[in-house]
Amino acid sequence: MNDSGVELLAADLSTDRLHAALRDPALASMNFLNQVANRFPKAISLAAGRPSEDFFDVDDLSRYLRIFCEYLTAEKGADVELVRRTLFQYGRTKGIIHELLARHLACDEGIDVDPESIVVTVGCQEAMFLVLRALRMDEHDVVLTVSPGYVGLTGAARLVEMSLWPVRETKDGIDLDHLVEQIEAVRAAGKRPRAFYLVPDFANPSGASLDLKARHQLLAIAAEHDLLILEDNPYGLFQAEDGQRLPTLKALDTSRRVIYLGSLAKTCFPGVRIGFVVADQRVAGADDGGSVLFADELSKIKSMLTVNTPPVAQAIAAGKLLEHGCSLTNANVREMQLYSRNLRLLLDGMDRRFPRGDNHQVSWNTPRGGFFVVVTVPFLADNTALEYGASKYGVLWTPMSHFYDGCGGENQLRLSVSVVSPDEIEAGLDRLAMLIADLSAKELCTQ
Amino acid sequence: MNDSGVELLAADLSTDRLHAALRDPALASMNFLNQVANRFPKAISLAAGRPSEDFFDVDDLSRYLRIFCEYLTAEKGADVELVRRTLFQYGRTKGIIHELLARHLACDEGIDVDPESIVVTVGCQEAMFLVLRALRMDEHDVVLTVSPGYVGLTGAARLVEMSLWPVRETKDGIDLDHLVEQIEAVRAAGKRPRAFYLVPDFANPSGASLDLKARHQLLAIAAEHDLLILEDNPYGLFQAEDGQRLPTLKALDTSRRVIYLGSLAKTCFPGVRIGFVVADQRVAGADDGGSVLFADELSKIKSMLTVNTPPVAQAIAAGKLLEHGCSLTNANVREMQLYSRNLRLLLDGMDRRFPRGDNHQVSWNTPRGGFFVVVTVPFLADNTALEYGASKYGVLWTPMSHFYDGCGGENQLRLSVSVVSPDEIEAGLDRLAMLIADLSAKELCTQ
Repeated sequence: MNDSGVELLAADLSTDRLHAALRDPALASMNFLNQVANRFPKAISLAAGRPSEDFFDVDDLSRYLRIFCEYLTAEKGADVELVRRTLFQYGRTKGIIHELLARHLACDEGIDVDPESIVVTVGCQEAMFLVLRALRMDEHDVVLTVSPGYVGLTGAARLVEMSLWPVRETKDGIDLDHLVEQIEAVRAAGKRPRAFYLVPDFANPSGASLDLKARHQLLAIAAEHDLLILEDNPYGLFQAEDGQRLPTLKALDTSRRVIYLGSLAKTCFPGVRIGFVVADQRVAGADDGGSVLFADELSKIKSMLTVNTPPVAQAIAAGKLLEHGCSLTNANVREMQLYSRNLRLLLDGMDRRFPRGDNHQVSWNTPRGGFFVVVTVPFLADNTALEYGASKYGVLWTPMSHFYDGCGGENQLRLSVSVVSPDEIEAGLDRLAMLIADLSAKELCTQ
Repeated sequence: MNDSGVELLAADLSTDRLHAALRDPALASMNFLNQVANRFPKAISLAAGRPSEDFFDVDDLSRYLRIFCEYLTAEKGADVELVRRTLFQYGRTKGIIHELLARHLACDEGIDVDPESIVVTVGCQEAMFLVLRALRMDEHDVVLTVSPGYVGLTGAARLVEMSLWPVRETKDGIDLDHLVEQIEAVRAAGKRPRAFYLVPDFANPSGASLDLKARHQLLAIAAEHDLLILEDNPYGLFQAEDGQRLPTLKALDTSRRVIYLGSLAKTCFPGVRIGFVVADQRVAGADDGGSVLFADELSKIKSMLTVNTPPVAQAIAAGKLLEHGCSLTNANVREMQLYSRNLRLLLDGMDRRFPRGDNHQVSWNTPRGGFFVVVTVPFLADNTALEYGASKYGVLWTPMSHFYDGCGGENQLRLSVSVVSPDEIEAGLDRLAMLIADLSAKELCTQ
């Protein structure tokens, strides 16, 4: 057979015969952002949302493994054989560090849950997938989500073909009136609102948080309209220095209304890929006529998806937890100071460059923690503006429109403070200010 | 609010409002098998298919990590910062050990592929999910699968709601006539046969293998009917001592007809949860009008599912690969001897206990490698028989009916040799022979 013969026979494919998620604009936009970052490697990035690398140390990994093995021996009474089997073999589908995560939730978040209601996942992304896959029975099931929102939730919804209905955000968190309107609109459309997804603390991308009153109101709305709440909390620990943390929704939840999505990506490290979900809801209709935990239903799905979260990765995360008495607050003292300092430097730097009296055309929010600040500008902050700024001024940021599943955020950009030094923040803001002046002037000319 | 008030408001669920996969008999059957094993912990298990634990050593893990770091420095020119970032941060969605896996495929399997066509996954289970999710565009897409077959493939198909059509197995592998009949039947039903899944070497559960002629015929059928082949190869390395390995389908594939599913669960260890998929098919219809690798489309789905495979787990697997020059054959010399010896002991033990001349009612196949042997018995080898044998004779095995997605295998049982000692094989077979005599006599009485 000659080369061209081989080509004719080749078992090749076409995107129009593959799943629709692969043609989704959300995916294309994330790829675009990565490509821009790769094309301008010397630009200062106020776009990257990954955690600081200042405190990573390769030697920690072996120590964490050793600490977990010691815990298995001392606390769980494991012999050498059981320690080996725990690390090397397949393991419990729901994970092997659920008891340690329950201790973390109790001491850092004031959440008291049965460890059996925890499923350890391959990052929080898998947790989102498990929950949506379970809840999406047919095309009538809908998940409501804060908009602008986290693209990971959108991705998981696309994979299970579940409709997303957006709920507006306000400067102070969620527009609760809009939430109720949307719940009613979903029902009026003959569909079922199953859950509402949000990040109540220092949201990605907006940095917004719900105050205590809004948290209680949200729980009341969820109860009244029989809706689950999917609470995602990757940044809650990173409260700015002068603030006081508010209780998570799960800590306030007295009726198993909240499914809590946890991530260790920012509090341990991303490369361990450990997330988890707390699903203490009871599910009626088990084979024996009784009820099981929703976590056990999610575990069944996990058994068909990844079988179990790598025990070696769980062991490393557990070692870090154990080294700090299962308190991620204690484990992240330096990180909290770094992010808090960077956020203050960014906000102060914005104040100095855009005095509030002088220029009402540029404004921004002032999150009290987390990684992100949103800036509103008097021009289209789109992909073209991003590429222009990268090429002419050497600064990267993220167009907020990427976080809307449709239209929105056209005049806004997201700045991130997590992986930049103080000098980079100052230089980055200088460059951003030049870009804003440049594009604002152009906008003025075209008006 | 009192306790009963809380109960009334509780956000609880019911299985009839969750995804249908959660009510699937395949899931219930796996749970049943695990429960039986847990209820009879002292029984000798000829059921467990996990790999041998004889050669696991916790100290290996830190060494593997160090070897991978040295490779990054020496071969990839990474500085300390890049080594840290590679292990601790988010990473390339398709994985960080693709080049090492390509070397393994070249030296162990005679498969030459561009490392870019490899996606590293959280076990082979995630690889199956990615492929089926990509191929399942709508309800017309069908995957054909060998029956009896691996339950993991069934699970992944359930999650994406993709129809499975069974293809019969023969003593010598696949019934290729039945495959063609089924392809035509799928088309006649107005549906699209997208792929055919099989384990060509020492299949789970049957132990059957395709001979070389059948491999060529299968590739020809796939080309003629424009079907992809999903080749799953977890056991191929474990050829019995006296045999010679046959080329994998992927090694024979000259037209990108085969998607190769790899697993390191048996050749490295399960707890690292490293699998991979080789998807070198070209996909037309990219945004720029060109084509991309199917691996890149799978990577997009992975970005919505688990983001990336834990770099720390990839690093550990890579360390083991590097320590053996990327040859898993070299890395598994002791394991190959152990499995080969156990298989011979089991087959010899069956010969001694059931002389072929004496008793035609008990028969079994003689796989030339792998973990499994299938025994045909003159009674119903079902869950009841399994529980009876566990309780009365202290021996565990797996009813073959669990591997049929419907009916089949009612008089067959699967024996596994992977995680038992020679003494356990002898004692287990003694017990099994007693059970078989007991139930055969009962069956005779009821006739």
